[in-house]
Amino acid sequence: MNKKCIGSIVLISVFSLQLFAQKEKREQVKSSQTAYEKYIDANNDAHLKEFIELVSIPSISSIPANKPDVDKAAAWIVHKLKAIGITTAQTIPTEGNPVVYGCWDKAPGKPTILIYAHYDVQPVKEPEWTIPPFSPKISDGKIFGRGASDDKSGVLITIWAVETMLRTAGKLPVNVKFIFDGEEEKGSPSFKGFLDKNKDLLKADFALNADGSQYSETTPSILMSLRGAAILEFTIQTANTDAHSGQFGGKTPNAAVALSQVIASFYTKDGNVAVEGFYDKVVPASLQEKEMIKKLPYDASRDMKVLGTTAETGDTIFSPLERIWYRPTLEIIGMQSGYTAAEGHANIIPGNAMARITCRLVNNQSGKEIIDLIVKHINKNLPVGARVTYKFSNGYTRPMKFPADTKAYHYVSDALFTIYGTQPLQTGHGGSIGPLIDINETLGIYAYSLGLQLADERKHAANEFFRLSSMRKGQLLYCYYLQHVADEESKLKNK
Amino acid sequence: MNKKCIGSIVLISVFSLQLFAQKEKREQVKSSQTAYEKYIDANNDAHLKEFIELVSIPSISSIPANKPDVDKAAAWIVHKLKAIGITTAQTIPTEGNPVVYGCWDKAPGKPTILIYAHYDVQPVKEPEWTIPPFSPKISDGKIFGRGASDDKSGVLITIWAVETMLRTAGKLPVNVKFIFDGEEEKGSPSFKGFLDKNKDLLKADFALNADGSQYSETTPSILMSLRGAAILEFTIQTANTDAHSGQFGGKTPNAAVALSQVIASFYTKDGNVAVEGFYDKVVPASLQEKEMIKKLPYDASRDMKVLGTTAETGDTIFSPLERIWYRPTLEIIGMQSGYTAAEGHANIIPGNAMARITCRLVNNQSGKEIIDLIVKHINKNLPVGARVTYKFSNGYTRPMKFPADTKAYHYVSDALFTIYGTQPLQTGHGGSIGPLIDINETLGIYAYSLGLQLADERKHAANEFFRLSSMRKGQLLYCYYLQHVADEESKLKNK
Repeated sequence: MNKKCIGSIVLISVFSLQLFAQKEKREQVKSSQTAYEKYIDANNDAHLKEFIELVSIPSISSIPANKPDVDKAAAWIVHKLKAIGITTAQTIPTEGNPVVYGCWDKAPGKPTILIYAHYDVQPVKEPEWTIPPFSPKISDGKIFGRGASDDKSGVLITIWAVETMLRTAGKLPVNVKFIFDGEEEKGSPSFKGFLDKNKDLLKADFALNADGSQYSETTPSILMSLRGAAILEFTIQTANTDAHSGQFGGKTPNAAVALSQVIASFYTKDGNVAVEGFYDKVVPASLQEKEMIKKLPYDASRDMKVLGTTAETGDTIFSPLERIWYRPTLEIIGMQSGYTAAEGHANIIPGNAMARITCRLVNNQSGKEIIDLIVKHINKNLPVGARVTYKFSNGYTRPMKFPADTKAYHYVSDALFTIYGTQPLQTGHGGSIGPLIDINETLGIYAYSLGLQLADERKHAANEFFRLSSMRKGQLLYCYYLQHVADEESKLKNK
Repeated sequence: MNKKCIGSIVLISVFSLQLFAQKEKREQVKSSQTAYEKYIDANNDAHLKEFIELVSIPSISSIPANKPDVDKAAAWIVHKLKAIGITTAQTIPTEGNPVVYGCWDKAPGKPTILIYAHYDVQPVKEPEWTIPPFSPKISDGKIFGRGASDDKSGVLITIWAVETMLRTAGKLPVNVKFIFDGEEEKGSPSFKGFLDKNKDLLKADFALNADGSQYSETTPSILMSLRGAAILEFTIQTANTDAHSGQFGGKTPNAAVALSQVIASFYTKDGNVAVEGFYDKVVPASLQEKEMIKKLPYDASRDMKVLGTTAETGDTIFSPLERIWYRPTLEIIGMQSGYTAAEGHANIIPGNAMARITCRLVNNQSGKEIIDLIVKHINKNLPVGARVTYKFSNGYTRPMKFPADTKAYHYVSDALFTIYGTQPLQTGHGGSIGPLIDINETLGIYAYSLGLQLADERKHAANEFFRLSSMRKGQLLYCYYLQHVADEESKLKNK
């Protein structure tokens, strides 16, 4: 890496020079990686066994009954960290689920890399899974199971990379601190408190987010923005009990209808959100961001094929990627009323109806303000005979943007280029990873995403999977990254 | 009963005469009933035990897994019928669940009374029950459990009445045929076929429906109309899988939202149904029906208190009882989309959303035509990116009206007056009892309703109950009815 480039924006004019330097480095690296590759290949079966073990544990953080499983997953990881010879491996209690902390600190004077991932998973809607979500199956070069991609892949690949370096070289070229979150899938409500309490322990020079993804199997990418998130559950009640649809039908309010009317009122005809004030703090995408989008080989049919959708929706004055990355949303993520079991039917007018909302937020939108606006809208649009109760979420995740003009960005970019052999694209992401904001605010560093997940891996949905080929690529990526940071920082120090 | 009145409309001018005659009869009857009352009171505990036994059997006809329970309930009733000394007691197979048939035919030359009730029950939404639905509890003068009111009360009270007469007098004054339906709660799809096949066996002079109700504990009533019913389930699909609400939110159609928009489109602002052609075959209530409604001491707050509603809805150009009895409805009886378990939440854009509709029909509305109109409406109002599949119901129940100018009507009216001491009101009912239409069409007789259920007994809802006081009153009512028909028909014959 040309030192002149470090800390400055990568300009098109220096691109050819940079490419040349990176290619040269890549050749050097190739031979030194042979040892890693040998170790990785020799241990593939053992790692696969570990993958199956960890995915088998239903560590669903949002369901209290699964707390023992969350603890079991944390203990499993601590055990694994100890087995690879890390200096310190332990769970650190928080106000919620523990964070798994691992530290290898035997490289005094060398930089410290903080690696974030999460070991908790989303809940499952069992009937939609064609394979059991917690009895992982290997098939067609993939491992299927809840959390296989999001984010047990992140936990394991980073541990295996460190294992590979320790077993191969007997040491790491940098210091490494792992923090594995146990509450990411419920918005990491305890993570900020954990960081505040352990600020000194977690001091680091660079941070990585292993809960990240690449643009495709062959095209790497770096995440430049995340949306925030806010959740609200509300129940519309029209009666204290369900009513016989014959006996009372015609004069009795129907909660399912009332809920549908309220939900329909959330949207304008052009696919925008009709809640007053919803877009007030939204800033349009910058020219730079629009340029970034133009560079991306966006293929509308790709996601449509993955999801089985037949149309892209939303306001067409914004491009699809602008809508996903730089526009806020109001989604109904769950809705229930009346008797809905697959078999049988109850001929009733439902007395209550429940819906859950997730908003994805951008720019300076505040989760609390947005939820307040929605509550105001619901209260104003309640049909006659309907009353409403709210269940507010514990916390909101703020939106975040990542700068491209940092050393940290370049190290990530270099590693991706070296392993993929092609310059990474810049992307946004419509999702929310609160801990990355917390890390930035508390520790003053940006946790750039360096993960191997891919868009079609059905994260949060049924039959989630992870590509086995990404295990090898991910370990090499992390091995190279750690070595590269050590080399570059050493050069800077000795300058 | 004054013979001149038989077969003619009861006119106000003969009312005083009729009242006098009925009162006289009532006095005569009182003494002859003492023996019945003694038997009923002496056997109250045994009957209560039987009530608990029968309600304990979860004979839910619409859930295939409960088929053994349906059969168990049928077998229980056959056993009970045999125990009271009925001539024939057996199950008769149909294309679906068996009909329980019981016959006492040792009164040659006397009229035959056909008694309809049903032994199947509605499904339950367990979490909403504060007592287990199939472990009946006696409390506060009530028996709580699914089917306690609808309609195991009807099955048992009619059997107990016959038991009382057989045990007290050693015989019945008329012939009695019981037919207990095992599919009423799923629309009695096999009942018409059963009647057609067993037309000769079921020949009768009069019919009663023991799945009926009274206006209040002190005011009897006779059912003059029923609405029809048609059911439709539809699923809106926007994707083949749920999608991560961050990753895809903003350009991806949401099935829960699409369903809500379709449901909202079913209604006009004034509370009517917006489906084109929905009201085309609706005839306004006749002046006579409007007069009947005026006579009823309608108390809006009564149902509102029972249900816990805060408003009466629907088009106010029709009175509440007109809306319930003489206007069709389109109700959402169940609706589900996304992850809706009480604990946890999944941050997804649901790929599919399901709703179940029940329409209540009037006049010459055809279930098939109405469902066709709704399908047309849904297809026309599908949001962009949404597709729909339909699950059609097996059958439709047609609306029905009962004449007041029949002997059969008067016998029911006389019995109610005698037991309650007050003239019965005429009422409509917004519900649907298909078998009553089938009986009328196949056997040529009207099955007037003579049941003890009351409006507040949470039929089809959680914590259904039946009043213990109605057990005694119901038995006396049926004992008196059977004797009265025998007496009156005998007088007519000997005239």
